[in-house]
Amino acid sequence: MATLKRMDEADMDPRAQAVLAEIRELRGSDFINNLWLYLAQDPPLLEEIWGDVRDVVGKPSALDPLVKEMIYVAVSMTNACDYCVHSHTAAAKAKGMTPEMHADLLRVASLASRTNALANGVRPLVDGVFDADV
Amino acid sequence: MATLKRMDEADMDPRAQAVLAEIRELRGSDFINNLWLYLAQDPPLLEEIWGDVRDVVGKPSALDPLVKEMIYVAVSMTNACDYCVHSHTAAAKAKGMTPEMHADLLRVASLASRTNALANGVRPLVDGVFDADV
Amino acid sequence: MATLKRMDEADMDPRAQAVLAEIRELRGSDFINNLWLYLAQDPPLLEEIWGDVRDVVGKPSALDPLVKEMIYVAVSMTNACDYCVHSHTAAAKAKGMTPEMHADLLRVASLASRTNALANGVRPLVDGVFDADV
Amino acid sequence: MATLKRMDEADMDPRAQAVLAEIRELRGSDFINNLWLYLAQDPPLLEEIWGDVRDVVGKPSALDPLVKEMIYVAVSMTNACDYCVHSHTAAAKAKGMTPEMHADLLRVASLASRTNALANGVRPLVDGVFDADV
Amino acid sequence: MATLKRMDEADMDPRAQAVLAEIRELRGSDFINNLWLYLAQDPPLLEEIWGDVRDVVGKPSALDPLVKEMIYVAVSMTNACDYCVHSHTAAAKAKGMTPEMHADLLRVASLASRTNALANGVRPLVDGVFDADV
Amino acid sequence: MATLKRMDEADMDPRAQAVLAEIRELRGSDFINNLWLYLAQDPPLLEEIWGDVRDVVGKPSALDPLVKEMIYVAVSMTNACDYCVHSHTAAAKAKGMTPEMHADLLRVASLASRTNALANGVRPLVDGVFDADV
Repeated sequence: MATLKRMDEADMDPRAQAVLAEIRELRGSDFINNLWLYLAQDPPLLEEIWGDVRDVVGKPSALDPLVKEMIYVAVSMTNACDYCVHSHTAAAKAKGMTPEMHADLLRVASLASRTNALANGVRPLVDGVFDADV
Repeated sequence: MATLKRMDEADMDPRAQAVLAEIRELRGSDFINNLWLYLAQDPPLLEEIWGDVRDVVGKPSALDPLVKEMIYVAVSMTNACDYCVHSHTAAAKAKGMTPEMHADLLRVASLASRTNALANGVRPLVDGVFDADV
Repeated sequence: MATLKRMDEADMDPRAQAVLAEIRELRGSDFINNLWLYLAQDPPLLEEIWGDVRDVVGKPSALDPLVKEMIYVAVSMTNACDYCVHSHTAAAKAKGMTPEMHADLLRVASLASRTNALANGVRPLVDGVFDADV
Repeated sequence: MATLKRMDEADMDPRAQAVLAEIRELRGSDFINNLWLYLAQDPPLLEEIWGDVRDVVGKPSALDPLVKEMIYVAVSMTNACDYCVHSHTAAAKAKGMTPEMHADLLRVASLASRTNALANGVRPLVDGVFDADV
Repeated sequence: MATLKRMDEADMDPRAQAVLAEIRELRGSDFINNLWLYLAQDPPLLEEIWGDVRDVVGKPSALDPLVKEMIYVAVSMTNACDYCVHSHTAAAKAKGMTPEMHADLLRVASLASRTNALANGVRPLVDGVFDADV
Repeated sequence: MATLKRMDEADMDPRAQAVLAEIRELRGSDFINNLWLYLAQDPPLLEEIWGDVRDVVGKPSALDPLVKEMIYVAVSMTNACDYCVHSHTAAAKAKGMTPEMHADLLRVASLASRTNALANGVRPLVDGVFDADV
């Protein structure tokens, strides 16, 4: 159940079809996951979000592609995003995340939420040595 | 301003002093950051939390130590934990995170929060191919 | 699957039935959405929550009714509330939210979550000029 | 630094002054914590929020007053509300929360955030026996 | 749909089988809820998480067992953890939470999220008297 | 205290200086708020984030500029972003948000967080009529 209607590709605006073609080319696969088929209702939004994901997750940058996917999964767990946890866990596996790495990601990200909650309950004074702005 | 009182080391229970000694030995430094000085009010809680952090973040595992710190920072940003963002960003820098890696971490983790919110607003059907439980 | 049992209207306490009658009268429709049928298990809680929603969302106030519904959707996306995103998106559409406005709401609210996460990771000094408390 | 201006009591609308008088009477103390002094800018909002807190936290109900304050603290940690963690931790101490109970609250609430994040990352099928709606 | 595969008990590593035996013994029941069957994919993670839950929720401590379960539910609501809300609400009912206590828990925890959001929007100065760190 | 160093404008990369010039021109003011001075450490990140804010919040679109700022404030409260609540509340005031509208925004957004938490604790079945994807 969704708040937008998933579009059939044949009924999409040419701008949306162009985005789908770009997704297929960059991923080397015909498969398009559902999020893009819903966003196709609004081509400018589709272009903007796809452009961000393509540039931030897909292009070479200071961090390794697999590390970026695992960071994405960690944030998605924390934000309780069902769709995103599924799609980015699958993407991380496709980029080489082993079962052991997956378990370690779950271990670290969940512990972070524990100590985050704890520190937010204790509210310790932040140590002056942590300040980068000096 | 905190909800616990930061203890002077001299006044701590021996169990708390033992944790501090272990922190110093493992980190090879005399510096103890504030969180532990507050938790020292309750030695069993201090032992439990320190034990988790030591084992999960500090011990060799499937993920690289720097990757684990960056995942920690990403979750801490998402949970709005002021203390944790500071302490783990500092730890990540100490483990080799360059300014370019830091910027990339901020870029990826913040984009994840954007698409998380978007998918939580659209609520697309999760693609069947993402299911690991088959 | 729920943590309360959805009640049949005929089995409800008269206080709960009175709330349902008020919902129908104010909305000019026989339809009652599920949340109220579950809360009917505890009439005082039903009265309290319905009273708040009626007064805050339903009564004339400084903000336009459609604006209030869109704010409700934006918060619900951020809190990952499946039920609330659906019910308030439907309510916003009923009050005149066009597909273009819906897409703009998704665009703005999701970008806010991005820059929120970013600022929570950078933790910039808040500019003194923003202080209303002077 | 705040987004509203804290009012001097002498300058407040009589409706706001009446709320402050009620707070003092119910608490048996002259002290008014800051939140109410800011909300006094908008008397209807002050009346609505104070009325909720008075009725939900202050009146006898199925849960013990101290238990209600501890639940309040647990939620406030999770939502990263600095002001609320401080005010409700102080209130819980005033109602009898010992240091051992405080530490146990921090232990339980922080572990909940860990297993919440973990389950949100694994996304296990919810067991049918948990369904109350049958 | 999950990101790990739920294991059949017969196929599990002996370390995972030992955890399941301990769960059964401590709970005095054959039933094992799904989370543990998924975590069994990674025995060290299963041992770590189960050990925490057993010690924090299951062992006698400063807070009453039912209070601890209700705190767990309150945090799980706030974190939007579907699985955890279900499993811990069921556990709280098993430990004696009446329908009236359940409604009161929902009332208090949801009001806390309201005043948390409000205070995070107003950002009042924290009252000096709340400081435990003096 | 921040995790990046706030740059003096004279020391910035020309790409960062160009962004600041664009901010000044579009806002018709010399004032640059702190976030941009920190992000200037990484010109590509500064360009990306500023470009998004400029296009989504600053350009004409289906929603009114003031409505967009108020949605931004509502999300920022929910995400507990101190910096963002301050900067976007100030921006909303500059675009015409009256004290009465501000109070109404706080009222609606905080109530949404209450019913979000409540529905996430009850987990009612989503009504079929809310489905847009049919």
